[in-house]
Amino acid sequence: MPLRMSTLFLRTLRDDPADAEVASHRLLVRAGYIRRAAPGIYTWLPLGLKVLAKVEAVIREEMDAIGGQEVHFPALLPREPYEATGRWDEYGDGLFRLQDRKENDYLLAPTHEEMFTLLVKDLYSSYKDLPAYLYQIQTKYRDEARPRAGLLRGREFVMKDSYSFTVDDAGLDVAYEAHRAAYLRIFERLGLEVVPVRATSGAMGGSRSEEFLHPTEVGEDTFVESDGGYRANVEAVTTVAPEALTEEQMAALPAAEVNDTPDSTTIAALVDVANSLQPREDRAWEAADTLKCVVLTAVVDGGERRRFVVAVPGDREVDLKRLEASVGPALGVIGEPTLEAATAEDLAKHPALVRGYIGPGAAGAVEGTPVLGAEGSVSGLPLFVDPRVAPGTVWITGANAPQQHVFGLVAGRDFHWDGVLEATAVREGAPAPDGSGPLRARRGMEMGHIFQLGRKYAEALDLKVLDVNGKQVVVTMGSYGIGVTRAVAAIAERYHDEKGLVWPRAVAPADVHVVVATKGEDGVAAALALAAELEAHGLTVLVDDRPKVSPGVKFKDFELIGVPTAVVVGRGLADGELELKDRATGEARPIRVDSAAAEVLAVVRPRG
Amino acid sequence: MPLRMSTLFLRTLRDDPADAEVASHRLLVRAGYIRRAAPGIYTWLPLGLKVLAKVEAVIREEMDAIGGQEVHFPALLPREPYEATGRWDEYGDGLFRLQDRKENDYLLAPTHEEMFTLLVKDLYSSYKDLPAYLYQIQTKYRDEARPRAGLLRGREFVMKDSYSFTVDDAGLDVAYEAHRAAYLRIFERLGLEVVPVRATSGAMGGSRSEEFLHPTEVGEDTFVESDGGYRANVEAVTTVAPEALTEEQMAALPAAEVNDTPDSTTIAALVDVANSLQPREDRAWEAADTLKCVVLTAVVDGGERRRFVVAVPGDREVDLKRLEASVGPALGVIGEPTLEAATAEDLAKHPALVRGYIGPGAAGAVEGTPVLGAEGSVSGLPLFVDPRVAPGTVWITGANAPQQHVFGLVAGRDFHWDGVLEATAVREGAPAPDGSGPLRARRGMEMGHIFQLGRKYAEALDLKVLDVNGKQVVVTMGSYGIGVTRAVAAIAERYHDEKGLVWPRAVAPADVHVVVATKGEDGVAAALALAAELEAHGLTVLVDDRPKVSPGVKFKDFELIGVPTAVVVGRGLADGELELKDRATGEARPIRVDSAAAEVLAVVRPRG
Repeated sequence: MPLRMSTLFLRTLRDDPADAEVASHRLLVRAGYIRRAAPGIYTWLPLGLKVLAKVEAVIREEMDAIGGQEVHFPALLPREPYEATGRWDEYGDGLFRLQDRKENDYLLAPTHEEMFTLLVKDLYSSYKDLPAYLYQIQTKYRDEARPRAGLLRGREFVMKDSYSFTVDDAGLDVAYEAHRAAYLRIFERLGLEVVPVRATSGAMGGSRSEEFLHPTEVGEDTFVESDGGYRANVEAVTTVAPEALTEEQMAALPAAEVNDTPDSTTIAALVDVANSLQPREDRAWEAADTLKCVVLTAVVDGGERRRFVVAVPGDREVDLKRLEASVGPALGVIGEPTLEAATAEDLAKHPALVRGYIGPGAAGAVEGTPVLGAEGSVSGLPLFVDPRVAPGTVWITGANAPQQHVFGLVAGRDFHWDGVLEATAVREGAPAPDGSGPLRARRGMEMGHIFQLGRKYAEALDLKVLDVNGKQVVVTMGSYGIGVTRAVAAIAERYHDEKGLVWPRAVAPADVHVVVATKGEDGVAAALALAAELEAHGLTVLVDDRPKVSPGVKFKDFELIGVPTAVVVGRGLADGELELKDRATGEARPIRVDSAAAEVLAVVRPRG
Repeated sequence: MPLRMSTLFLRTLRDDPADAEVASHRLLVRAGYIRRAAPGIYTWLPLGLKVLAKVEAVIREEMDAIGGQEVHFPALLPREPYEATGRWDEYGDGLFRLQDRKENDYLLAPTHEEMFTLLVKDLYSSYKDLPAYLYQIQTKYRDEARPRAGLLRGREFVMKDSYSFTVDDAGLDVAYEAHRAAYLRIFERLGLEVVPVRATSGAMGGSRSEEFLHPTEVGEDTFVESDGGYRANVEAVTTVAPEALTEEQMAALPAAEVNDTPDSTTIAALVDVANSLQPREDRAWEAADTLKCVVLTAVVDGGERRRFVVAVPGDREVDLKRLEASVGPALGVIGEPTLEAATAEDLAKHPALVRGYIGPGAAGAVEGTPVLGAEGSVSGLPLFVDPRVAPGTVWITGANAPQQHVFGLVAGRDFHWDGVLEATAVREGAPAPDGSGPLRARRGMEMGHIFQLGRKYAEALDLKVLDVNGKQVVVTMGSYGIGVTRAVAAIAERYHDEKGLVWPRAVAPADVHVVVATKGEDGVAAALALAAELEAHGLTVLVDDRPKVSPGVKFKDFELIGVPTAVVVGRGLADGELELKDRATGEARPIRVDSAAAEVLAVVRPRG
């Protein structure tokens, strides 16, 4: 039976929802696919559920094709396995935690590594049982700090997550490549261009890891690529550091000296002042010669504010997102903290810092107690540096005295640090770390993520099998995720125009949208007859048979809903004529009632 | 592609799981369909997921057939809507509650009346939009005090819940009947006999309500039925009370008197003592002439113990389950309390009670301050009575003095009560309340429940539409649930034998199980060839191609897994012969390789 809009649970909206920042969110709500239930939590309406089911079916087929076996885990899980792997804490505030009536701790699973590991441990015991690729399509939970953009960053969402279990790394490589290939096929079928890029592993742990990013301006991620094939999330790009000097070489460098640098609280002003008051012979001072010490605050779970300083070359910007990805372990905090610029209140806690003239060296002089550093410094603030601040590099930086900077301060000789972190924004045109050429940056949306977990989870949960020699070996694992609900949003984001959605055929809520644009019963009867004929050929049909709704409104709804092909039953019906319309191009051409079904089939299933 | 057991993620178990009380739980775990993840929380393995999907498909088809439209709500929901209807509190400890990182209250939904109501309010505004029947197949959560019996009483489970929205009661009746008929078709297709019985509404509120009980010894519910067609859950059976006397009539009855009744702390002893010391002329005293006052404790949410007394005829037993269903409002507590017999510690709090000789009247005498009753009594204990304790009925009951009972105590004249409750067990052979004959009792398992909610939720959440006269009217609702995961267990419970599961064809994980019982490659090749042919006809096939597994083990697994039809590839293969085997009857007959597919199809799809 066709979906009839006269009774379909659907009301399209003329106005954008107030909280919608991106097109997919706006249009999926307006066209009646989803509806907000709470921040980051959505209800799926009939049309939305059909698209979701089609996306799931594509994923299922490709997972089955590589030998994946579908299972289904609970969302509500006990604390213990996540405690064993450390993730109960590592996830921080991002985990929904609760207690049952007996006050036992539970969580709403954000991902299921632990449970899959335990299940395989429960069932399998020999290398002969492996490899095993298991997957599920299941509802997941993450208590996002900033749920946004509709389905793109939700708190309850559907993921396909799979896990591979192999006896060794070679098996893992095979599993990883199989999933990688399956992912490329899935996204191709969904009409989503994706770029697999190197990624960091975050809370998952493990070694090799790639994200499948869909290039789009609304993406939250930035990735870089070179002509030579280097592709990485900026978070995972490693900076090419200059070669460090030896202590001997450093000792041979000229001594640092403090100079007056009036009104030089910005890098630009400092460069100007340096060039006018302390000009260098061979070439002018540049921003890259200065060392910028930025005081930041890490807001960790529970709201504690941990302050620290990161020092980067003056021509570089601190990239908070990149820094967030790496600063947690450096600060000794669990999970990914949120970083923000230190507030006046934060700074007030460190009166030794002279604002605008902060530097790592001794207070007001070259020698003496250092200003920055976790241990024994005047401020007690940990100091982290960009990889470019290698031992032996020479800098102009704040002298911790008003209107003064130190010149010729040598990293590793005149100041020391608590750690090296990737802290600066990756720059367009910078060389790729692998020497494959200059980098170009693009925005992308994470559609999938594959990880070589290795033995982290299997070790924590004691998953071992007997190998071919009868010896117990820890199983090697991979984990592979696709955001299913997010994919629906990404497709909507990719395929829309100013009038509404324009679904690819593979995921459209119906194959054909029949618009009854005549008054009287004949139009509806003709529409239903055509729908029946199309359905007999396996097509799904949406019929707009709403009485007392003008053709204009119906056309607008067709454009908003975005079924790729429409048949208009209009005035020509009396002469045996209908109109076949393409949503994407807007092109229309007359077709005969007698051959309408064949004409539609030729368009909808050109090869079928 | 067939499911090949050589790689299928499945390990059957020879031993029953330690916590399994019922056959379905035992067999679903042993045969590799489900696996426990936490108390009342299960993981679905590949075979189980296939059965679950088939059950869901049947339900979906029948819901669509009555015009149901599928949507999907979140499981994680904000507190506010449930607060508005009072259910945030009413559900008591049965609700999983949690907070997000901003300390907002959330719950894991046990059922979605509120959210559906709000969604319809969001989209619809006119009687022309109605009726609407919406449903979802979705994961639900209840923090059961005693999760048990595997999937039969879980804490995370799948339900189909639907909701009807109509403009008036007549519309509700139509919706209710449509769902009722759909439910009967669903259970018939699933092979589950069900009896629709009158039910109480519990936390849902509303008026007419029926449960679909599947008669089985392991059911938690008891229902009664008469030849005349009366059918009710015992919790919902109303007692036929004797006609009450007027005050005048009561006044004319003989005065009560206190008599010595030594050693009469049981009803049987009391009857004996009464007949020997205070014989009645016309006939002997019977248990039914005595009034038993039972002190009970209601354990309410938070663990508070509220004591009360229920008085029932001495020949009746108090039915705690029936009483639990009704005592909440009578005690003024929210939700369904757990009842237990008062402990010695409970009784010690009411020293006025003389154990074994408790009665409602005055302490030690007929006149004076009453012993029982919420207000102004010696004990302060609320007193509830069975409907048989009607005004004017005459009783022998405790005199609140050791070794003494009151004779001729008249209900409504000599003592009064705080409420009338259905407190006694329904008795086999008792007359049906509607006069349709004597009742028979059976055990049953609740498979579905349909409710005429009326306007409770729509009023609480202000869901109104304009009626045909342009007037705002509150929408009338119904709610209809089926336990989907529970249905899988019920089918397993109904269809098994001592060897394992015996699935009905409609829900079997595969249509055919091909057992390779020969050594060498030929057997596997023949099995796969047959499987391919059967799959070309749309059948699903499980092939036991495990190398180094004996035919005996394979047969045992076939019997345990319970696919209804097997083809055995055995020694006869060399002569072109296979064996066709029926799981239920165990009957086997030879079939020819050439015609094997046709033979199998004739069995699996006799009409197709």
